[in-house]
Amino acid sequence: MTMAEKILAAHAGLDEVVPGQLVECDLDLVLANDITAPIAIKTVREIGAGVFDRERICLVPDHYAPNKDIKSAEQTKVTRDFAHEHKIVNYFEQGCMGIEHALLPEQGVVVPGDLMIGADSHTCTYGGIGAFSTGVGSTDAGVGMATGRAWFKVPETIRFEIDGELPAGATAKDIILHIIGKIGVDGALYCAMEFGGSTIENLSVEGRLTIANMVIEAGGKAGLFEVDDKCREYVAARARRTPVEYHPDADAEYKQVIEIDAAEIEPCVSWPHLPSNTHLVAESRHIAVDQAVIGSCTNGRIEDMRAAAEVLRGRTVAENVRCIVIPATQKVWLQCVHEGLMDVFINAHCVVSTPTCGPCLGGYMGILAAGERCISSTNRNFVGRMGDPTSEVYLASPAVCAASAVAGHIALPSDL
Amino acid sequence: MTMAEKILAAHAGLDEVVPGQLVECDLDLVLANDITAPIAIKTVREIGAGVFDRERICLVPDHYAPNKDIKSAEQTKVTRDFAHEHKIVNYFEQGCMGIEHALLPEQGVVVPGDLMIGADSHTCTYGGIGAFSTGVGSTDAGVGMATGRAWFKVPETIRFEIDGELPAGATAKDIILHIIGKIGVDGALYCAMEFGGSTIENLSVEGRLTIANMVIEAGGKAGLFEVDDKCREYVAARARRTPVEYHPDADAEYKQVIEIDAAEIEPCVSWPHLPSNTHLVAESRHIAVDQAVIGSCTNGRIEDMRAAAEVLRGRTVAENVRCIVIPATQKVWLQCVHEGLMDVFINAHCVVSTPTCGPCLGGYMGILAAGERCISSTNRNFVGRMGDPTSEVYLASPAVCAASAVAGHIALPSDL
Repeated sequence: MTMAEKILAAHAGLDEVVPGQLVECDLDLVLANDITAPIAIKTVREIGAGVFDRERICLVPDHYAPNKDIKSAEQTKVTRDFAHEHKIVNYFEQGCMGIEHALLPEQGVVVPGDLMIGADSHTCTYGGIGAFSTGVGSTDAGVGMATGRAWFKVPETIRFEIDGELPAGATAKDIILHIIGKIGVDGALYCAMEFGGSTIENLSVEGRLTIANMVIEAGGKAGLFEVDDKCREYVAARARRTPVEYHPDADAEYKQVIEIDAAEIEPCVSWPHLPSNTHLVAESRHIAVDQAVIGSCTNGRIEDMRAAAEVLRGRTVAENVRCIVIPATQKVWLQCVHEGLMDVFINAHCVVSTPTCGPCLGGYMGILAAGERCISSTNRNFVGRMGDPTSEVYLASPAVCAASAVAGHIALPSDL
Repeated sequence: MTMAEKILAAHAGLDEVVPGQLVECDLDLVLANDITAPIAIKTVREIGAGVFDRERICLVPDHYAPNKDIKSAEQTKVTRDFAHEHKIVNYFEQGCMGIEHALLPEQGVVVPGDLMIGADSHTCTYGGIGAFSTGVGSTDAGVGMATGRAWFKVPETIRFEIDGELPAGATAKDIILHIIGKIGVDGALYCAMEFGGSTIENLSVEGRLTIANMVIEAGGKAGLFEVDDKCREYVAARARRTPVEYHPDADAEYKQVIEIDAAEIEPCVSWPHLPSNTHLVAESRHIAVDQAVIGSCTNGRIEDMRAAAEVLRGRTVAENVRCIVIPATQKVWLQCVHEGLMDVFINAHCVVSTPTCGPCLGGYMGILAAGERCISSTNRNFVGRMGDPTSEVYLASPAVCAASAVAGHIALPSDL
């Protein structure tokens, strides 16, 4: 069996599952945010049996928090009141705010081997540490909160074997943008995407989380990385529960095995209006930008902040560019303070936001006017994603976003 | 003549003016923000003669910046494009963002003796360093930008003589809340409010700016503080132009002289829904709060951050309270990093925002849901000011806001 099949089988109480099979599983975690939780909570109340386990529900106000407007204030209040009523352990607000998909691995809430659903499409992030996690509708999340169970159609798995050394400047973000560019936004539709090979082994856990975060942009049901010593070390420092490792069998059956030579993964950027519209940074230098955003559940971890700071150190953002840096969690934020990165950002003329999803989904903290262009370390560049329908979003790594902010057009750090 | 009369006379080219007289004056500065600038700019374009002096116009996107939504993105874009077109020197965006009334004195743009209008009601702030500055409508600001001139009806002046030592814990904020409570929100309608006495002499320049900031809440046209050595030192470190000092004559004629014994100014809090609804903190302890906001043009300077941090150090915000700290400018923000205040705030479970007016005017970054209560170091507590019409805002000093955040109800630092 593949990793995905093993995790689903284990949680369905079965020895074996095959792609296409419908299974009903026990859930380790159910997640919702300030947008989706109110709908999920409505479902929980309709079922009327409370929550299945107050330690297994995660509620994270992050999209419009701190409250953008009255409506978001009401949504957060519904979520907060529910959390207090049911003594939800993993309600993250003051003291530990942050973007859900950065926060849960950081806080050790999700651990390897978990089966998890979340009412947010980027719930797939946790595959980076060997969990099967996937986005569902808010109502499904509500049923999961009430029952602790969900049904799945066992997905086929596509294996990505990535070997060799990345070219200078290429990062985990470039790997996933490259793959999405190669297979398309429906290239892995309802498939588990399993990643392996020497390039993946050499990646940091944070880099793996970045890749897993974006599998949904290729239509993937989940992204899965095997647990190795790096992952074990990351998890050991954080886990609140005992991790379980699931490794693919040597004879696991894959829908497809895609082999990629890391040497061909140059720093890239996804032009509007699809993540699959991938171009080389080197062929995008003619594109001027009005704004750069460095952050999000994709690239808002400390490694990303350091990468951006390395480019911005001693430089200043171009006169016509706004550069908004958003550490993904308060822990990352404070780490930026301690590592001197805040000095770098402010002296480079960036703005540093409190942790929030904010501009990524057109929420707040950097919305685009008509015709404006933004280069962003986020995960989606759909029409109007970050503001006016005529605005444009270009997806890239934190380092490329930082370099582009300084250059005033899309650029490599080595261009500066 | 009073200070106000002297400044108006000098800018009207007259030896003397009397209250009630209509005068046309040369302006030193004209200010607008992201909400009001687009309207002022429309007026400038209608007049069609460009701007009177590109060094004398201040444009500060601060209310909804970084852009809250598409509409605010468009407003900022109009402002930014105008600033670039006319090479406006004092356009403050990336690299030097902040709340207008904190930013302009900090950056030495406004200096003692200036006559200034601004399309924002708290333009009166600059009286704290001996300027006559007042809020006007956006169209008036536009005419000012085009012509460099404006007409005024010379206001009567009320002199506030405040002597003696403040009780422990009382601050500049308490002085102005006490005064507004005493004279009412129309107690100084269209009057200049001139402040003097030993208590004022002992106040920091920042404290004087806090008081001047809120004279509009008593209906004041302007608030005026004499330039002394403290002010000279503050200005010398910043001024971009040569200051001019105007002191009231010994025989100046006042509408009224109000003498206040500082000893009677206990820490106070203005209950909803008027700044004049002033009560003692000691008599407000029964009021639970959902949120605390520490920042704004009234109390977002480094002195305010230090005062809040002193209370929050080693403590944590109550479980049900969100505490949002908003340093007023990027310079203050970075100073908080360097002085270790960010550690205090984050460890105390606060959220630290990028500089913005944000929640003060119900913009974003901490909007209230129905029925929620906020204690805030801001300047207005009108119905619905910070969110839902049934929400409530209580005005107090940064120290009292911090103490209330920790206690979960309105409290004095000494209560903790």
